Amino acid sequence: MATVLKAAPISQQIVEDLTKQCSLLKNNGCIPCLKVILVGAHPPSVIYTRNKKKFMEDIGAECEIIALEEDVSEDTFLSTLQTYAKDSSVNGLFVQLPLPKHLSHIDVGQMVPPEKDVDGFHAQNLYKLMAGDKGERALLPCTPKGVITMLKYAGVNLEGKSVAVIGRSLIVGKPLSLLMINYNATVTMCHSRTSDLKKITKSADIIVAAIGKAKFINSEYLRESGDQILIDVGINHDEFGNLCGDIDQSDVEDKCALITPVPGGVGKMTIVSLGQNLIAATKIQMEK
Amino acid sequence: MATVLKAAPISQQIVEDLTKQCSLLKNNGCIPCLKVILVGAHPPSVIYTRNKKKFMEDIGAECEIIALEEDVSEDTFLSTLQTYAKDSSVNGLFVQLPLPKHLSHIDVGQMVPPEKDVDGFHAQNLYKLMAGDKGERALLPCTPKGVITMLKYAGVNLEGKSVAVIGRSLIVGKPLSLLMINYNATVTMCHSRTSDLKKITKSADIIVAAIGKAKFINSEYLRESGDQILIDVGINHDEFGNLCGDIDQSDVEDKCALITPVPGGVGKMTIVSLGQNLIAATKIQMEK
Repeated sequence: MATVLKAAPISQQIVEDLTKQCSLLKNNGCIPCLKVILVGAHPPSVIYTRNKKKFMEDIGAECEIIALEEDVSEDTFLSTLQTYAKDSSVNGLFVQLPLPKHLSHIDVGQMVPPEKDVDGFHAQNLYKLMAGDKGERALLPCTPKGVITMLKYAGVNLEGKSVAVIGRSLIVGKPLSLLMINYNATVTMCHSRTSDLKKITKSADIIVAAIGKAKFINSEYLRESGDQILIDVGINHDEFGNLCGDIDQSDVEDKCALITPVPGGVGKMTIVSLGQNLIAATKIQMEK
Repeated sequence: MATVLKAAPISQQIVEDLTKQCSLLKNNGCIPCLKVILVGAHPPSVIYTRNKKKFMEDIGAECEIIALEEDVSEDTFLSTLQTYAKDSSVNGLFVQLPLPKHLSHIDVGQMVPPEKDVDGFHAQNLYKLMAGDKGERALLPCTPKGVITMLKYAGVNLEGKSVAVIGRSLIVGKPLSLLMINYNATVTMCHSRTSDLKKITKSADIIVAAIGKAKFINSEYLRESGDQILIDVGINHDEFGNLCGDIDQSDVEDKCALITPVPGGVGKMTIVSLGQNLIAATKIQMEK
């Protein structure tokens, strides 16, 4: 049986650490402050933003959800964003996606100042990532950062490891590939047009599934040695409506060394990374 | 014997095309104008800038080399850069590297406005590349763009191909990997810490050597079928002082299908890409 690498104990440890850091920042006169802009009342988005608020308050930071009407004008949306972008008491700024259709053309990641970009998608943060940063100066995208945090916690050293990253999204696949390269892994970026995916996954030490297809990766994609590490980034629903990942977990659990579960795995780390980025952003701004 | 994919005929064809485009732009009242800032008189840099000027003038564009003294102050250097960055008659702006030591901490790629960044290293251009752009809106880094131009000319379709990119520099390895992903290739990013590089190169349809080590890749890295495509990005000197690439060309020439030579290969394409970027930049600015 594979070891199941759950997020909960990792999250708990980081929450303790972030709480201490938050307390130190408060002693220096600065309470880390996150503003989350929520447009409309898309039910999952309401839950996600509420969870973010709770997490930030749990570590001792401030978090306000700025709720805008579903039909808010582009001008009002942008001026609200600008107000918080310029407000020096705001350390982190984040727009909950998806935006309603009339605003969906706006690349919100680029409208947040890079030093407040707790989501890690501003061009300047991605540029630092591309230039070799592992989070020393860059605010890193939350999901890739969460994957690295989990691997570190599990004692996995990426140096010299071969990794198959399946999925080339701007949110996960590409930044995670670049980040793993910065940790000296050898990364193969795979996607829907990859020929002979099974050959690639079988030769990888670590497989990251970030495809968005329920239970796509099964034991046919694994080698027989049972020594592979599987990272499941997917959040899907199976044919019975149950939450599941991109990996067929019950099919592979006897055939790999380590696996992140869904739910309770990578998905849970995103908010942890957001908390880490808020503290990092606050420190960056205090140094200025 | 492998087909040798030389830059000269490709360059010639593109020069003809760029000359026509330049002429059309002139008819619309705009002569594409490149300013190259050269600090000091580092001999290779003097030659490179002179070659750039000649190339741009050959296609009908304007190019001025702004020569600054080796010991120019940081203030003067930055204000010169700012002047041309703001000057609406300047379409492309480029700082010849390397800079002298007292200026080498400046990330010049970020100081040129993205729409004039003919070198393609501004964070906003790299962000577009990362988001999937193949040069439609982004100005792409010149060497990676040149590699793609050569492969297209040779009729190589990247879709579904497996590529081993060896070398993870910000100049070549990383942007080229991302660009090839945008063409639906499956890319393995390899580097000095990669274990079992030969296994990876043997299974690749295309090998890109961008390592900076003379003749590093020899026939031991190739499979026996002789069907591989080799792209040599290296510019080194061998033990006799002769120019050579990262691939031991004489050792592999009977064992691959296609190879770019050194000299006369990828290196020659960089300036061609710069010319294409200048025309693209001029068009972007005219549309504004």
